[in-house]
Amino acid sequence: MKDEFVEYVKGLQDQITARMHEIDSDLKMTEDLWDRQDALGKPGGGGRTRHFQGSVFESAGVNFSCVHGTMEKEFAKVMKGDGNEFWASGISLILHPLNPRVPTVHANFRMIQMGEKQWFGGGSDLTPYYPHEEDFIHFHKTQLDVCQPFECYEAMKKRCDEYFVNHHRDGEMRGIGGIFFDHLNSGNLKQDFDQVVALSKGFIPSYFPIVERRMNEEFTQEDEDFMLHRRGRYVEFNLVHDRGTLFGLKTKGRIDSILISLPPRVKFSYCYQPPKGSAHEEMMQYYQPRDYCFGS
Amino acid sequence: MKDEFVEYVKGLQDQITARMHEIDSDLKMTEDLWDRQDALGKPGGGGRTRHFQGSVFESAGVNFSCVHGTMEKEFAKVMKGDGNEFWASGISLILHPLNPRVPTVHANFRMIQMGEKQWFGGGSDLTPYYPHEEDFIHFHKTQLDVCQPFECYEAMKKRCDEYFVNHHRDGEMRGIGGIFFDHLNSGNLKQDFDQVVALSKGFIPSYFPIVERRMNEEFTQEDEDFMLHRRGRYVEFNLVHDRGTLFGLKTKGRIDSILISLPPRVKFSYCYQPPKGSAHEEMMQYYQPRDYCFGS
Repeated sequence: MKDEFVEYVKGLQDQITARMHEIDSDLKMTEDLWDRQDALGKPGGGGRTRHFQGSVFESAGVNFSCVHGTMEKEFAKVMKGDGNEFWASGISLILHPLNPRVPTVHANFRMIQMGEKQWFGGGSDLTPYYPHEEDFIHFHKTQLDVCQPFECYEAMKKRCDEYFVNHHRDGEMRGIGGIFFDHLNSGNLKQDFDQVVALSKGFIPSYFPIVERRMNEEFTQEDEDFMLHRRGRYVEFNLVHDRGTLFGLKTKGRIDSILISLPPRVKFSYCYQPPKGSAHEEMMQYYQPRDYCFGS
Repeated sequence: MKDEFVEYVKGLQDQITARMHEIDSDLKMTEDLWDRQDALGKPGGGGRTRHFQGSVFESAGVNFSCVHGTMEKEFAKVMKGDGNEFWASGISLILHPLNPRVPTVHANFRMIQMGEKQWFGGGSDLTPYYPHEEDFIHFHKTQLDVCQPFECYEAMKKRCDEYFVNHHRDGEMRGIGGIFFDHLNSGNLKQDFDQVVALSKGFIPSYFPIVERRMNEEFTQEDEDFMLHRRGRYVEFNLVHDRGTLFGLKTKGRIDSILISLPPRVKFSYCYQPPKGSAHEEMMQYYQPRDYCFGS
């Protein structure tokens, strides 16, 4: 099952790569194949990191990795596994578009084993910078569709709303959410695997149609300024709260692959507020949990 | 003694403010007086935050605060105090210049009480972006001078070299160090207070002469690009490793005052390296512990 998962996520990495090249004709890809060594210099797996730069995607990372070894006991407790020997594989991606009218997206699908325990985790969430509500509905409804056979959308949407939060910013979300799940283990590994595959198939149709619809939209300096500041909040979330980043740092992962998630250009301003009455002020209201599928 | 310390650091905040205005004629200051409430809504002190923007200082914060209350037990252990009731006051500053030939500086001087235990902490460290070695020597020699009566330079320099490190970046330092101390408590509070005052008096002569020497130097796009990437490392350090930031987040401090330290414009690039043979490649060698005072 582990081998099957590895093959599946590598294939998904290829599909997403192909879709990005179709959309962005200027896209340049750097591929790095890397090996990981544990603290004692023993082989600990590796990965296939792909970094992209183009005219639609200012900076993007679509990474596959499969790592194993021993982790610090204290961190192993946080992981809620069995013992501190681990095996983990997955795809992790983050796409930062150049045009502020196109949302940033993040997705991750992973399988983890610690001792006798095995489980899946992952999800996908959107970070838009302009109040195109129809895009947000499209993204969420696509997640709802792939979740429907498993009746898991509501629970996974709620976990996502609770997870991607800058707790130090009065509960402000990083973006508009999506789905998030962890420790998925029903007792039937094959069934869980099929569910993760089904959920991951939502990624391409949930996101790329939005990119195609918005990538040629004219944008203003104000749009860009707002995006750069929101990217600052993205950095805050990833470095202060994100467990995936922490997992990478704690397990001595390849640092450039882990921090590929950081946006290429960022602004931080003291007491930043979007201009009064702007579309960006309106956008701020969306960084709170909200229903996009069942509303009146 | 606590009142005396509060008065001293408020005065130091004023002196530094005055010096900045002398140097940067375009400098605009925003002052925010704020009150802190603890988790139960009880008064928990407050502060005087000053944010600056000008043509020499692109963004700078010079903050005074005096806060008290109860902290989470787990975090109280990290603080190594007595119980989890705390009182803390200090000055904390960070100056991000516009010109990449002028170094960024950070300094902090604080007094903390937890139960029966009282101690001082602080220090000052420099983050340059151009290999002007004479500036680094000036900064360190000024620290050496103020430390001399207390014979504390070597120990405090070493702690600084060990503290401002991006451990996830193979031990690369944030800048070129300076001095750092914590839990300063000799058993004679008055004597310790005098020492902290003496050390803090090194700040103005250690830094501002460098600003005046470099602020009108011509700089290139490459200089700026390198600075923006090094500011990225600054963000990584502050959000992943810095205990001062963590203290602020854990004690529910005023978030805009805590994160005033983040640089105004930042770049993150996958596998960033400065151009081969450039002054910036040379600069990279300085982000490792190095002797600036006793060398041959």
